[in-house]
Formats: sequence, structure tokens, C-alpha cells
Amino acid sequence: MVGVDGGSDVISATYDLLGTAEEAAATAQRICVEQTVEFPLDLIDREDIKDRIVAKVVSLEALDPGRHRVVVAFPRLVVGSDLTQLLNVLYGNISLVPGIRLVALDLPQPLLAHFDGPRFGRSGLRALAGVERRPLVATALKPMGLSSRELAELAGQLARGGLDIIKDDHGLTDQSFCPFEERVTQCAAAVAEVNARQGTRCLYFANVTAPSGVMAERAAIARRVGAAGLVVAPGLTGLDAMARLAADGDVGLPILSHPAFQGALTVSDDFGIAHGVLYGQLNRLAGADGVIFPSHGGRFSFTRAQCREIVDGATCAMGSFAPIFPAPAGGMSLDRVGELVEFYGDEVVLLIGGDLHRHGAGLIDGCRRFLEAVYSAGVEG
Amino acid sequence: MVGVDGGSDVISATYDLLGTAEEAAATAQRICVEQTVEFPLDLIDREDIKDRIVAKVVSLEALDPGRHRVVVAFPRLVVGSDLTQLLNVLYGNISLVPGIRLVALDLPQPLLAHFDGPRFGRSGLRALAGVERRPLVATALKPMGLSSRELAELAGQLARGGLDIIKDDHGLTDQSFCPFEERVTQCAAAVAEVNARQGTRCLYFANVTAPSGVMAERAAIARRVGAAGLVVAPGLTGLDAMARLAADGDVGLPILSHPAFQGALTVSDDFGIAHGVLYGQLNRLAGADGVIFPSHGGRFSFTRAQCREIVDGATCAMGSFAPIFPAPAGGMSLDRVGELVEFYGDEVVLLIGGDLHRHGAGLIDGCRRFLEAVYSAGVEG
Repeated sequence: MVGVDGGSDVISATYDLLGTAEEAAATAQRICVEQTVEFPLDLIDREDIKDRIVAKVVSLEALDPGRHRVVVAFPRLVVGSDLTQLLNVLYGNISLVPGIRLVALDLPQPLLAHFDGPRFGRSGLRALAGVERRPLVATALKPMGLSSRELAELAGQLARGGLDIIKDDHGLTDQSFCPFEERVTQCAAAVAEVNARQGTRCLYFANVTAPSGVMAERAAIARRVGAAGLVVAPGLTGLDAMARLAADGDVGLPILSHPAFQGALTVSDDFGIAHGVLYGQLNRLAGADGVIFPSHGGRFSFTRAQCREIVDGATCAMGSFAPIFPAPAGGMSLDRVGELVEFYGDEVVLLIGGDLHRHGAGLIDGCRRFLEAVYSAGVEG
Repeated sequence: MVGVDGGSDVISATYDLLGTAEEAAATAQRICVEQTVEFPLDLIDREDIKDRIVAKVVSLEALDPGRHRVVVAFPRLVVGSDLTQLLNVLYGNISLVPGIRLVALDLPQPLLAHFDGPRFGRSGLRALAGVERRPLVATALKPMGLSSRELAELAGQLARGGLDIIKDDHGLTDQSFCPFEERVTQCAAAVAEVNARQGTRCLYFANVTAPSGVMAERAAIARRVGAAGLVVAPGLTGLDAMARLAADGDVGLPILSHPAFQGALTVSDDFGIAHGVLYGQLNRLAGADGVIFPSHGGRFSFTRAQCREIVDGATCAMGSFAPIFPAPAGGMSLDRVGELVEFYGDEVVLLIGGDLHRHGAGLIDGCRRFLEAVYSAGVEG
């Protein structure tokens, strides 16, 4: 394929491989075959297939004696334009092989052109929230078990506190104690009422993560009853389902993606998909306008370097796609806001959940302290 | 929840935890909180939420000093009836925590009743193929890069060879060299023609793995042009998308699930989801009638014990769901048929790909040798 359709028609994927140099060379070759023809090469007598379909090793280097890095060029031809097939080519069968990790991805413009990507991106979300420069401040409606009315009261208080984004906890779906339409209607109304009274633009994001077919329905309801955005966990729904929602002009709402169920792909350095590729690039390709992830220093295990990778994936050059917001979360606290802003800069959505509730003077005061901390930490002064 | 709604309304999930006894106790407690309220327990003053929403540790035992096993009871209430939310509760946020593996799952009947499960199951697939007892013999159309006409010729030859099932390779989607409708139409016609001539009932399965919204369309085309079944890779589409297809009476075709992209969930014993739960139970819950997986002894790394687990998950008691077929694959060869039948018994779909093409006397002869090997290995004699 290289030299046939030209360099711009090649998907460049970089993998780290466990093993000796000899093993790595064999694994590199295996990736080229397993992810395309999936057929013994010695049984293929068609030179055009070997030439145009089988992927090619571009480079192979040692990172250390037991770990090598290979760059593989996949012909775009083998992907067509399906997001599911792109994922399959990048990491389908080889997900079943220990010791292979996808660490970098470069998609050619002719392929990117098939995808809509983020509808709003960072600047679109800023415009909706009416916040020009500082980090956006956000929280989640919790705990699960509250009724729709109780969640709406909570949302109203949080809006009074001046937050930019209030999102459903990703565990709120359509349970009997807070049925989807009832909850979203009441929460959206509560936030709208406070916005009208205060002249604020707090955005309520409804969690629409749901089975195929149901998600579009819930998104339509969310739109109709006045939610300002959507939460989707693409690990549960498939990245393609999120992409479809993002591309749907009748929905037309920004999306925050949530990492639930995606963790096993990133948790080990020895296989899976690197944080920047999965949470950053692939979530962005699939239409997220902001990507929630557990920040370093919280109750999860991501490192500073992995968080940096996610920021890079969310903002790197990627066709005509807008940069999207990293939204670090997962046990963040008010007293870490300064440190978080120092690390992430101003182009971030800071998501603090439980800790907002921990401060003596009440929830509204907690929100105000959150905002104050952001202002006093502001990179822009 | 235990003692409130009664035992039958509890989802019982067993996890293996890395760490000391003390660490395991903390992780067990964390699972109960993280996967439900996701909120600091000390900030919850509502006893009903602590009692009815937060999951409970049922038992915790040491497997060895560094590994413990916990049984957690989740209230069904927190799941509602969405498959996506079931996955979220079982392994959503904790997918982001190293050292937790879901190893067993017991779903209560009131929850199972919300799902359709497999439409055909093992016996339904046997009826379609007209094979009463012996293992079913299957292969995949490969290599990628052949045109629709060439794939159809191949399908015709394989049908002449007497195979029960011929499936699209899961990498064949809608590429320019074999567009979906053209390929499926021609392959289905080629198999139908041979069936009519021979009086056989070879089943052609079309790969409909595709983005949300597109998959239903492809399934409808497959049905219309005479495909006998569908291939879906739920790791790429979401398990819920496969479940929807299985439940769709207008499609009404059996489904073989393919494990692409699911491997990172099972590849390490230290986290993820056990083979039997993921490939067996969850694929079955999501409507697969047969589950393709890389058998021990092939070019992948599953062990005999892991393969046995998959068989168990595919066939264990699970509400009113029919048992489904294990379909071991991934580098199987003709000379291993005896051994495979000895291991899997007669209730299996044996899938041999490349090796069928390796035998001097041609493909049709290869197929016949495949069948002969199955007959001579037959558990039923």
C-alpha cells in the first residue's frame, strides 16, 4: 500500500511489544497479517493482496532488551469508513495476544474525513457556558439512591453555587428510584430556574448511556426537556454509538465521555491501548467534546504522564477536529485545585464530586470555594 | 438489600483481588461503594441509601496470601433493566483500578427476565443445519482482499465440501474491494445454489459488525439476500448492540459472536473479566447463539482451563436461556480435530480457517477430510 495509494492513505499505528528482538520482529510481522488478511501468508499466491492489503512494518526499535517499538502502516483500504472496523484493524484480534500495546496513532486525512468528530469542542463548550478563559468547574449529581426530586434540589443548589457544569453521575440511568425522563426533566428545570434568576448559564448534562436503540430516545428526551449536554460511557455503549449521537443534528448537544468499563484497556503498560490514544484520540474521533478521566492523585491510579498523554490526545492536531476538554476527576478535592490548574492549565474542566459536600458551610459555599480556588489559581491571572 | 427485596433480587458477583488480607478487605468495601453510590459513605446520612443501594460483601476468603476472593451482592435496583448499566455495575469504574477481576456471576431471574438472550441456541442452530449430534464444522471466508465474486466462488467450493457453516471473516465489513451488499448477496447465492444442487443445508453467516445504526441495516440486507446467520463482534459494537439484533424479530437470524477487541478484558489473571463470564455468560446474555474464541493450542494463548470456563458459561443454567455453542477457533488444524472433539465433546462448532487450504488435494477435499475427522472422532461413535 505504501507507494500505491500514497503516504496520506496509510494509517500509522505504533505498538510496544514485549519480548526479545527476535520475538518482537515475529510479533510485528504477526500484527501485519493477523489484523488484515488473517491468513497464512505462504498460502496467499496473490501478489496484489500481499502488496495492497497486508500491513507493513515501517520501523522496529528496541526500547530496552525486553521491549520493542514497532510502527505499522495499515492501508486505509482495509478499514473502509466504519469506526468499528478501524478499532478492529488497530486492536481487534491482537487484543487476544498478550504483550502488544497500541501507543500512538496517526490517522490520514482521507479517513478522518469520514468522521464528524466533536460537534462543539473546547471553544463550543466555552461559548455555551459563557466562560472565556478560566477552567470550567463541574460536579456530578450523587449519590445514587436519591429521588428525582432530591437530585433536582441538589442540582438547583449546585447551580446557585455558580458551577458551570452539573452532570448526572454516570451510574444514574433509568432506575425505578429516579426514572430517566422524570429525573432529567426535573434537574433541567431546577437548573434553568436558577439560571433565569441569577443570569447564569450553568449547563446540566444528562447521562444517556443506554442500550442500542434506547440511547437516541433518551437523548431526544434530554434535548426536549432542556438538558444542555449529554454524558456517554462509550466503553459500555461502543464508541460508534457515541459517534452517532454526536453526529445527530437533531440532538445537537455537547457530549462528555466517561471512562467506565474502558479501564482494562489501559491499566497495564504491557498490553491494551495507551491513555492518550484511547481516552484522548479515539474518544475525540467518536465525538466527545470533553473526556472525563481519573486524574493522578485521586482514588485511581493514573500517573501524571498518563494524564498528560490524555491532554495531548484531546488537543493534538487531528484533521479538522476541534480540540476537546480534558476533564480530570475521580476523587479530586478543593484543596488540590491550585495544583490541578498548575498541571492542566486553563483549558480544562475540573470535576469535583464528593468533596464539594464535605465542607462545613454547606454545598453552595463549597461551590463558591471551588470557583474562588480556580480564580486564585488562574494561569491567566 | 439483602433481606429487603429477598435473595432472588440480588446480583451476585465474585471478584478476585490482588493484595494482602487488609488490602482485600478495603478493596471489597470499595467495590460496594464505587460501583453504586460512588460517594463517600461518611457523607451519606440516609440509612435507606446505605441499606438499599450500596452493595454488600457476602464473603471474603484468601486464595493465597496475595490474592483474595470476595462475593459481592448488588441490589438489582441499581441496575434497572439496561444491559449497559449491568456492565457498569459489574465492572465500570473498577475497570480503572488495577488488581480486581470479575470471576463469577449469578444473575437473578427477575433481571434475566428483562433480556431476550439467544434466539436459537445450540438446538436451534442444529435444526437449521440439519445436524443432530455431531460437532458442526465451520470455516471463514478469507483472505481479506478477495473480491465479492472470488469470495462467493470460495463459499461455493466450501459448501460443496459439505461444511455446515461458512462465515465471513470478521475483518470483512464494507470495504471497496468487497462491498457489504454485493458480497453477502453473491456469497449467499453461491451457497444456496450448492445447497439446492446437493440437497445440503450449509449456512452462510454474514459479518454485520458495523457502527450503530448501520448494523441493523446490514442485518436486514443479509436477511433479504438469503444469509442464514450473522457474525457480530460485540467488543467493537457493544454487547447491547448485539442483544438488540438478537431480539429483533424482523431479523430473526442466529448470531455467532466474535471476540475481537474483547481480549484486553481477559488477557491477565490480575484484572478484567474471566473468560467464562465474558465470552460465555455475557455474550449469551447478549444474544449470541454461538461464541467464537481462540482455543488452547492454536496461535493464541487461552489455556485449557479458560476454554473449559467458556464452555461452562455458554451452557450453564442461566434462567430460561438456551445453552449456546462454543466455537473454538484461532489457528485450529485438521490434524487436531480428534483432540478437539475429545476436549469439547459433540456440542461444539469447530472452526478451521487457513489450514483447510493447506492440503494438497484442494479445498473441497480439505472440507471432506474435516468432516471425516469429525465423524471418526465422534463422541457418539
